[in-house]
Amino acid sequence: MQINRNALFAATAICALASQPAMAEEGMWTFDGFPAEQVREQYGWAPDQAWLDTVRNSAVRLTGGCSASFVSPDGLILTNHHCVASCLFDNSDETADYLLNGFVADRRDAELKCPGQQAEVVTMISDVTPDVIGAIGSQTGEALTKARDAKIAELEKAGCPDSETTRCQVVTLFGGGQYKLYTYRKYSDVRLAWAPEDRAATFGGDPDNFNFPRYSLDASFLRAYENGRPVATPEHLKWNPRAPEEGEITFVVGNPGSTSRLWTDSQLAFEREVRLPVTVATLSELRGRLIRAMEESKEHAREGGDMLSGIENSLKVYIGRTKALNDPAFTAKLAEAQNDLRQQVAGDSEIGDPWTTVDEAMNAYRALYYPLRFTQPSGDLYSYAQTLVFAAQERGKPNSERLPGYTDSALPLTEKQVLDERPVYPWLDELGMEWSLSKAREYLGVDDPDTKLLLGKESPEQLAERLVNGTSLADPAVRKALWDGGLEAVEASNDPMIQYALKLATRQRELKALADAQYSGPLAAAGVKLADARFAAYGDSLYPDATFTLRISYGQVKGWVERGNQVPFQTTMGGTFERATGNAPFDVAPAFAVNQTKIDKNTTYDFVTTNDIIGGNSGSPVIDRAGTVIGAAFDGNIHSLGGNYGYDGTLNRTVAVSAAAVQEALETIYPAPALVEELARR
Amino acid sequence: MQINRNALFAATAICALASQPAMAEEGMWTFDGFPAEQVREQYGWAPDQAWLDTVRNSAVRLTGGCSASFVSPDGLILTNHHCVASCLFDNSDETADYLLNGFVADRRDAELKCPGQQAEVVTMISDVTPDVIGAIGSQTGEALTKARDAKIAELEKAGCPDSETTRCQVVTLFGGGQYKLYTYRKYSDVRLAWAPEDRAATFGGDPDNFNFPRYSLDASFLRAYENGRPVATPEHLKWNPRAPEEGEITFVVGNPGSTSRLWTDSQLAFEREVRLPVTVATLSELRGRLIRAMEESKEHAREGGDMLSGIENSLKVYIGRTKALNDPAFTAKLAEAQNDLRQQVAGDSEIGDPWTTVDEAMNAYRALYYPLRFTQPSGDLYSYAQTLVFAAQERGKPNSERLPGYTDSALPLTEKQVLDERPVYPWLDELGMEWSLSKAREYLGVDDPDTKLLLGKESPEQLAERLVNGTSLADPAVRKALWDGGLEAVEASNDPMIQYALKLATRQRELKALADAQYSGPLAAAGVKLADARFAAYGDSLYPDATFTLRISYGQVKGWVERGNQVPFQTTMGGTFERATGNAPFDVAPAFAVNQTKIDKNTTYDFVTTNDIIGGNSGSPVIDRAGTVIGAAFDGNIHSLGGNYGYDGTLNRTVAVSAAAVQEALETIYPAPALVEELARR
Repeated sequence: MQINRNALFAATAICALASQPAMAEEGMWTFDGFPAEQVREQYGWAPDQAWLDTVRNSAVRLTGGCSASFVSPDGLILTNHHCVASCLFDNSDETADYLLNGFVADRRDAELKCPGQQAEVVTMISDVTPDVIGAIGSQTGEALTKARDAKIAELEKAGCPDSETTRCQVVTLFGGGQYKLYTYRKYSDVRLAWAPEDRAATFGGDPDNFNFPRYSLDASFLRAYENGRPVATPEHLKWNPRAPEEGEITFVVGNPGSTSRLWTDSQLAFEREVRLPVTVATLSELRGRLIRAMEESKEHAREGGDMLSGIENSLKVYIGRTKALNDPAFTAKLAEAQNDLRQQVAGDSEIGDPWTTVDEAMNAYRALYYPLRFTQPSGDLYSYAQTLVFAAQERGKPNSERLPGYTDSALPLTEKQVLDERPVYPWLDELGMEWSLSKAREYLGVDDPDTKLLLGKESPEQLAERLVNGTSLADPAVRKALWDGGLEAVEASNDPMIQYALKLATRQRELKALADAQYSGPLAAAGVKLADARFAAYGDSLYPDATFTLRISYGQVKGWVERGNQVPFQTTMGGTFERATGNAPFDVAPAFAVNQTKIDKNTTYDFVTTNDIIGGNSGSPVIDRAGTVIGAAFDGNIHSLGGNYGYDGTLNRTVAVSAAAVQEALETIYPAPALVEELARR
Repeated sequence: MQINRNALFAATAICALASQPAMAEEGMWTFDGFPAEQVREQYGWAPDQAWLDTVRNSAVRLTGGCSASFVSPDGLILTNHHCVASCLFDNSDETADYLLNGFVADRRDAELKCPGQQAEVVTMISDVTPDVIGAIGSQTGEALTKARDAKIAELEKAGCPDSETTRCQVVTLFGGGQYKLYTYRKYSDVRLAWAPEDRAATFGGDPDNFNFPRYSLDASFLRAYENGRPVATPEHLKWNPRAPEEGEITFVVGNPGSTSRLWTDSQLAFEREVRLPVTVATLSELRGRLIRAMEESKEHAREGGDMLSGIENSLKVYIGRTKALNDPAFTAKLAEAQNDLRQQVAGDSEIGDPWTTVDEAMNAYRALYYPLRFTQPSGDLYSYAQTLVFAAQERGKPNSERLPGYTDSALPLTEKQVLDERPVYPWLDELGMEWSLSKAREYLGVDDPDTKLLLGKESPEQLAERLVNGTSLADPAVRKALWDGGLEAVEASNDPMIQYALKLATRQRELKALADAQYSGPLAAAGVKLADARFAAYGDSLYPDATFTLRISYGQVKGWVERGNQVPFQTTMGGTFERATGNAPFDVAPAFAVNQTKIDKNTTYDFVTTNDIIGGNSGSPVIDRAGTVIGAAFDGNIHSLGGNYGYDGTLNRTVAVSAAAVQEALETIYPAPALVEELARR
């Protein structure tokens, strides 16, 4: 699944460094840098500005980490089923399991509110590079990151005086080579209109994830509301439930979360040697704990499902990346590209040697990485506590001095995500906390001061149980009182989770300051030089690494050759019944079974294209030459996992569910006549 | 813990390739290659032949994967607690938990039989290199491995006509440069005399495993029996419960399981890129499943404990190896050593280019590795079935044509391990089978023919449940009937686990034949050349890679410097109480708490030496210059984990429990006056 699970941390994530000349069909292009000439050369046609404008105005970003698009004038949004799974889950209980059974709103006022969800449409992009670079001046280390973040906070606040309906975000492109201010029209009331059964979307489950041929109805419809009424969206994409044709040009428009295509050797080495091994080992253990816990009861099976699919999706991504970085043929290409760049700018005294700066920053980061990682316990309840503590502390400061997630421009979404009502399952929180605390002890060591800070004399099991059982933060009213009460209320609270978050906050700030000084600051300075190097070597028709901001990729409907065998470009709905074994996760969804004779078996189900996408693109519309929607991207094939580091057009594929299959489902399997009518309306 | 969990698979493990000049204190020396001159130079003294002979005749190998030594004339054996944990576990039930509570036999006939355990003492080593090399001749691939294995079966059978009391084993040293026939006096009735509480041995649990300073009473006593009576062992080591002195020379004598110090680049690359990642990821998930399952009930907590400690120990080893192979400074040394060897023999036409042969074999192995690994489901019950099936099939063939574990010389131990009575916990078997089958599907892929062979149309969960619930193999009488009934009984059995093992056997044989042809055969041929190269370059005073056969290492009592801080060479028993938090695994063992005031707090508890050991050395006596036992090795420090690939004398340490601490426990904590008297007897 191409969800961007890092979306919430995007602001603090490592910035991409700069870009290189793109291969044909490679590229997650910004709308102001669309390579029309390149497309025209290859396909004999390219979109004009009007085409691009309509598409851009119809494209939606979902703050949960997904992409989407408006497909009717009444705020109807197409996205993936897995992008609304949390919404279905949060609206379910033991009596009504919408995730399992799907959901069709038979009238608009039955549509389900999605906690924490917000839909955003880009309305303006302005270049603020001179402002930010000017504010940074010749500063370095922590001073650099502080000056940068202060200027960004100022620009964001000034750009969006109306924080009710707009959101401003300064985005770092080319690792600091460019800064752009994105202005969004935001809709913070997002509701669910239609979703199929979970099994229809997840047929094949984890075994088939990142696999193709595939038989998945990974689609759903949301609707944006404002003041309790559907939003009018005159700019939207036309729904076109036809089969894709082999070789036709396709565009995927969405918000790829992050890529690391321009990392230097030492960044890739850190990934391969440190981050990926610890991530795969610890997450695999969590997966095992959760799988077993879900076998304990029906309630656990239901309540743990959303978390498990997130873990398994992430693990597949990380294991795929591990394989890519352990493939000598793949890494040789990355090294070659980097060597070429170094040669192109060798002796340029303006550029100097940013590579050594990066090497030093990565060395410093190696020493900080475990403390940074493991002083962040897992669990929704701890996250609430941490956000409440930091928000209370940060709001007392001037806007320009606050941490990135707590500036005036960022606070509204932070507040919404803390205060929205959603169910908490204490056993799940306890499981996650116990796991993360025991891994902290394992990786930091028993005698490490951070382990002692985390555990005191308690065991991970005891501490997790005491905090989860003792806290009242599952109650949104309690969270609201603490949010509204500010620092005084937070410091006076005797909630053990709040006290724990307060205790950890000092060390977390200290570690962030160290990372800013030794890692983020030097990396930002080197990023500017590396971007200069790239522009000097290859000109400025480059695409930046992904940053969970709007991009467009072009490609075509096309299979690939897997170990000598041609993989067809599409599947049909009838194939589901052939692949089914009767056993989970290869059991046919009940409504598919019931309607087996009615379903048009020849309907194109899923298809693959050469578009260059990554996690965060989930739910992106697949658009044809006419600008109409013929599918929704929901996955990549297994080769796409190395796409984080580099695009290989012979193997890397986007996997999409066809609009034709969604239409068949709307008409025959999960009937929604009102939506059928709405989608057909001009 | 330095147990050799691969002991049972040693016959089919990759053979080490050849040796290089040893660094001071580096080396797991064979007794016929002891570097007396080197020791004399360094310590001004070296053991003479009589010293070496007594030590060799007192050294015991335990077939469970450990080392030990005779320490009285009545067959009393010193080893680690963790080497007898399975024995304690197998003798326990819900009413008597010897693993938790420890065990002291108040008279000899109360000593507890250890299922599957056998004690072995080397009585003769003869060089059979010419016989085996002659039989191989100029053959290659599968023909080579068949000819080699046939000759080995013949030599082993001829060497040990009395299979009741002797065992013969041909060992491959220097990757095929040498073949030696080891003759053992064997004792297949091994009983437990004394063991402390589990928490006394495992204080600090997994967090402190491979850690130091350490506070662990990881010691126990077994006794060898024959015809129902203790074995007379006039040759034994003198027990010497004194404190070790810093800087004194120490010898560790035992059976290091396997090392990979002489692997070529492509073997190390395979380890780093393929085997370690899949092993850590899958085993971490199993760990998580088991941790959660053990939290479900007291029974599960008890029944899963032995398996969990094995998994956690293995994981720590594999994660430590991953770190070592991801440490550029460490791997640079390995590469340098390899380059030196290649340069030394460059242009030697007799040696040619075995490195390329190894590269090709490793490439072939990459394609075979997942199928080989994942067509072996986990679980005791499946293992019984598989052994019964293979034994029935192999016993029908001439000795020289059988698979290694089923030759006349190997069958007695194989039979003992299948037929000995020991408890089976079906939930544990189901958990392990479900896990391994789901990992097979994940790594091989849903559409792989091997996945289809393993699962048919069933899910991993269904299949594991059906096989475990349906089989009768937990009953030793059923296993005996099938063993005695041979192929006819096995093929006629309607036991679903037997039927499943029969179904898989064909494919397992096919994969083994492919691996022999493309991997083991070429590697064996290259091994001879690489050994020749090493002998040509560095002479013949080399030590071979470890092979779970008797070795001696020398070193000294010595701490080390950890990130600028001196780690002391010993701990005292009183330190336990200072480190204790009251919470598992840092809770003091009950008998320690009760006897806190009586225990002499200044007694040396654990200590470290520079001896070069590895898994399989667990339980090895630590011997002083006088030839007396002053401790039992039970672990290495965290830096010892890279010792699989290379020894670093500045950091790598053996961890031992002192004889003084064991004596204190025998006198004060778990009183065993008869043993105290027996150990003091001359």
